Amino acid sequence: MAKDGTFLMNCWYVAAWDHELIDGKLLARTILDQPVLLYKGDSGRAVALDNRCCHRGAMLSKGRLEGDCVRCMYHGLKFDPTGKCVQIPGQDVVPAKLGVRSYPVVERDHLVWIWPGEAAKADPSLIIDIPYLRDPKWRGMAGYMHYDADYRLIVDNLSDFAHLAFVHAKTLGGSEEYAFKTKPVAIERLENGFRVERWHMNANPPPFHRKVTRDDGLIDRRNIGLMYVPGVFFLESLFAEAGSGAEKGDFSKAKQYRNCQFFTPETPGSTHFFWNYLHDYDLDNPTVALSLHDSMVEGFMEDKAIIEGQQRMLDADPQFRMHPIASDAALAHFRRVLERRIEAERLGLRQVAAG
Amino acid sequence: MAKDGTFLMNCWYVAAWDHELIDGKLLARTILDQPVLLYKGDSGRAVALDNRCCHRGAMLSKGRLEGDCVRCMYHGLKFDPTGKCVQIPGQDVVPAKLGVRSYPVVERDHLVWIWPGEAAKADPSLIIDIPYLRDPKWRGMAGYMHYDADYRLIVDNLSDFAHLAFVHAKTLGGSEEYAFKTKPVAIERLENGFRVERWHMNANPPPFHRKVTRDDGLIDRRNIGLMYVPGVFFLESLFAEAGSGAEKGDFSKAKQYRNCQFFTPETPGSTHFFWNYLHDYDLDNPTVALSLHDSMVEGFMEDKAIIEGQQRMLDADPQFRMHPIASDAALAHFRRVLERRIEAERLGLRQVAAG
Amino acid sequence: MAKDGTFLMNCWYVAAWDHELIDGKLLARTILDQPVLLYKGDSGRAVALDNRCCHRGAMLSKGRLEGDCVRCMYHGLKFDPTGKCVQIPGQDVVPAKLGVRSYPVVERDHLVWIWPGEAAKADPSLIIDIPYLRDPKWRGMAGYMHYDADYRLIVDNLSDFAHLAFVHAKTLGGSEEYAFKTKPVAIERLENGFRVERWHMNANPPPFHRKVTRDDGLIDRRNIGLMYVPGVFFLESLFAEAGSGAEKGDFSKAKQYRNCQFFTPETPGSTHFFWNYLHDYDLDNPTVALSLHDSMVEGFMEDKAIIEGQQRMLDADPQFRMHPIASDAALAHFRRVLERRIEAERLGLRQVAAG
Repeated sequence: MAKDGTFLMNCWYVAAWDHELIDGKLLARTILDQPVLLYKGDSGRAVALDNRCCHRGAMLSKGRLEGDCVRCMYHGLKFDPTGKCVQIPGQDVVPAKLGVRSYPVVERDHLVWIWPGEAAKADPSLIIDIPYLRDPKWRGMAGYMHYDADYRLIVDNLSDFAHLAFVHAKTLGGSEEYAFKTKPVAIERLENGFRVERWHMNANPPPFHRKVTRDDGLIDRRNIGLMYVPGVFFLESLFAEAGSGAEKGDFSKAKQYRNCQFFTPETPGSTHFFWNYLHDYDLDNPTVALSLHDSMVEGFMEDKAIIEGQQRMLDADPQFRMHPIASDAALAHFRRVLERRIEAERLGLRQVAAG
Repeated sequence: MAKDGTFLMNCWYVAAWDHELIDGKLLARTILDQPVLLYKGDSGRAVALDNRCCHRGAMLSKGRLEGDCVRCMYHGLKFDPTGKCVQIPGQDVVPAKLGVRSYPVVERDHLVWIWPGEAAKADPSLIIDIPYLRDPKWRGMAGYMHYDADYRLIVDNLSDFAHLAFVHAKTLGGSEEYAFKTKPVAIERLENGFRVERWHMNANPPPFHRKVTRDDGLIDRRNIGLMYVPGVFFLESLFAEAGSGAEKGDFSKAKQYRNCQFFTPETPGSTHFFWNYLHDYDLDNPTVALSLHDSMVEGFMEDKAIIEGQQRMLDADPQFRMHPIASDAALAHFRRVLERRIEAERLGLRQVAAG
Repeated sequence: MAKDGTFLMNCWYVAAWDHELIDGKLLARTILDQPVLLYKGDSGRAVALDNRCCHRGAMLSKGRLEGDCVRCMYHGLKFDPTGKCVQIPGQDVVPAKLGVRSYPVVERDHLVWIWPGEAAKADPSLIIDIPYLRDPKWRGMAGYMHYDADYRLIVDNLSDFAHLAFVHAKTLGGSEEYAFKTKPVAIERLENGFRVERWHMNANPPPFHRKVTRDDGLIDRRNIGLMYVPGVFFLESLFAEAGSGAEKGDFSKAKQYRNCQFFTPETPGSTHFFWNYLHDYDLDNPTVALSLHDSMVEGFMEDKAIIEGQQRMLDADPQFRMHPIASDAALAHFRRVLERRIEAERLGLRQVAAG
């Protein structure tokens, strides 16, 4: 188990894409170091329970779905969607308080959100709204990947677009020029994250975009990155015909993308990564989303290699100290915001204990 | 190494089936966290020695059998069956006290028993008698399996027959009805374990039995389980034609089985499992034992999956607390008996140290 | 990271064979628990740097060689061979002190030596001279192997030739007689290691020698072993026609070998092993070196099996105590010398800290 203070607990995290649960699968997924069972029963409502039978700790995910309930297939205890034990074979009375923990879950725009902290504080209005996932003007394919790395290292990665030039030169970036000639035009420090914007004028289109458009013409490229606590990232990308006036607001010659990314800690050293890369053109051609999906996987594998290598290095020597450079401004702000919220939560819990 | 108090040391454990040693094999087996070498030399007598050469810790199991002795094949030191070093190549005098620890072993009814504790206390009369293994009225096949789980979790498993209904519905159990309609008719708390008895009247025969008998007729089924410290289990099963009066003692229409099971801790988190499932009918047909052996392996693999999953859950969170249900009476008694004996042993050792 | 006092830090160790770096490869190698990047840039000079980018700890070995510099392919920081950061893409000024640690390296006789301790103390004259590796009268093939064992266990192994009889009876040794009939004629305790000499008269030639010479005639065999801190070993072997007077200095009927071995700790429990087995006859026949190389690999695999087994036994029980025998004189002396130097280094460092 993670030590107190490692994670922000009272917060909504993505637990799954809804399609992962359509077939009644009993999905075992560790979330913030807690063993969680996720499923949808006959009613179609998403349920999240502690994955350990309260009797002897057997895995409920190896059990059986019965209506909206789940039965442990060790000694047959049955639990309803609230976690309450409703049957013990061979025992007439079930103690009223016997059961497993249930987690607040909210399903919205194809995402299943979970609240790993105190259930009483789970306010659905705190869930970040992602209109792109429900707007018919955008099309994409839901994706999942697993990282053997602290989720904060992945957040770091996304906080500086310069890495596009080196990690993704032949996939998502396009050229190393991007790192040398462009700078963030603005880093906006938000209360709950940051916003960065970066323009690259008169550039070659990156390979993943060219692969879909088959257009080698020069482009003006804008990336806007929005990162929110605990690890929700939107990348708004725009590729316009070079000189078509996109930087002055004329998007008539532009194609746009929305990359929605969600990082949920599995353990202190591993992360669930949910994502969807959406486009706003040629919507009736399903091969566009497929091609973009494959390009993203290719690029994310490049990130995964470098970030997991970084994680191994940090694990091997806790005394290693990082040295910030100018472009770390966004990630440094985000870490401060996150630490402040974790610290506030920790103090809040203490006050409750003392009160 | 396990901490003091994890295991009961002064106790006989099964170290091997005798057939494992017939060919002069130098068998390395960790028993109660101790690296043990087992072998039979020319005399045919079973020997158990510390598997580490006293010189530099090389594995004697990688050495060479010479008569009843074993030679370390690193620098050639030779040890007799008492563990005494009897030769050092190139050195004229062998120090009288040089040698490796030897363990008391007793071979009985095809089992090699070992005493991991104080040798002086190793009384062969303490070995549990298992007449079935030598009685020609019973026939079976010796088996071995390895569990990545605390041996006590396997003992727990066998303490409640209700698991037959859920874990083994399609193999050893037969139907879930077994858990709902039957209850232990008696749990007898023994000084050194427990005895449970459970009847299931007018039931379908379980698949493993039907496979051998090819008889779908309803049966009256009796299971008697006997569990002894540290982890010796006998399951006496009887399947009689339904209504033939078995519950009143008429066994004329009954077929019987004896499941002899022996659990020996390898480490705190892993276990050696020795077993033999014997039958009392159709003794001249060797395919009966083979079929039953395969059925047992199938069933034990079901247990292994659920118990090893349970172990992983318990390992991941030491703060997880189990909640007893009514049918845990037998296992709860057994745990108390075992803990009391381990505690007594621990205090006894302390008194020796203080005396 | 290893605890202070585990390794001798201020000492030259072999980091690589020079041929490992010829193609501009960025070689990642952990040395004394430190992650090191080794490479040769355009100038052909060997470079050793901390393998962690000072910015975020990404692996420089996954970066790109540029002239004599290396560029981290995460955010593009570029480092020169002294470790100094010379470029940060998108940032105009590079802080003067920003960079990664560089290690003193010296290339000599095809070996790349590294100094893991205080750079100011790295005196190239302290490197042990190995004339055989540059002398045209000797021919061999450079080899590398990895051990999952403490380097001191490998040093131990080489300190007693008796193991040839048992571990290598069918490869490098030839007969068990070697252990019984021969003894070290002299163990010379050196300030920085030891020298042992052992003769075996009128013996069968060992298999690896016979394989090359195709000569079954009896031989007089002399082995001289020289071991130096921290783990440099030379085995000077001579095989002369039996009775030809080799023990009186007549080497006219002798064939000789020089086994140069270098042990560099990777971690406290694993070791890099560099070696070259050279011969002084039939120099124009390249198959001799190839055959000897293969024979050595065969023999070293025998050592590896026994030493890694020994390591697992020692790891499993820190309370296990070894018992010395007479032939441990050389290894016991070496351990004392090594411990004394490590202790002196530890005290020296303390004095610096206090001064």
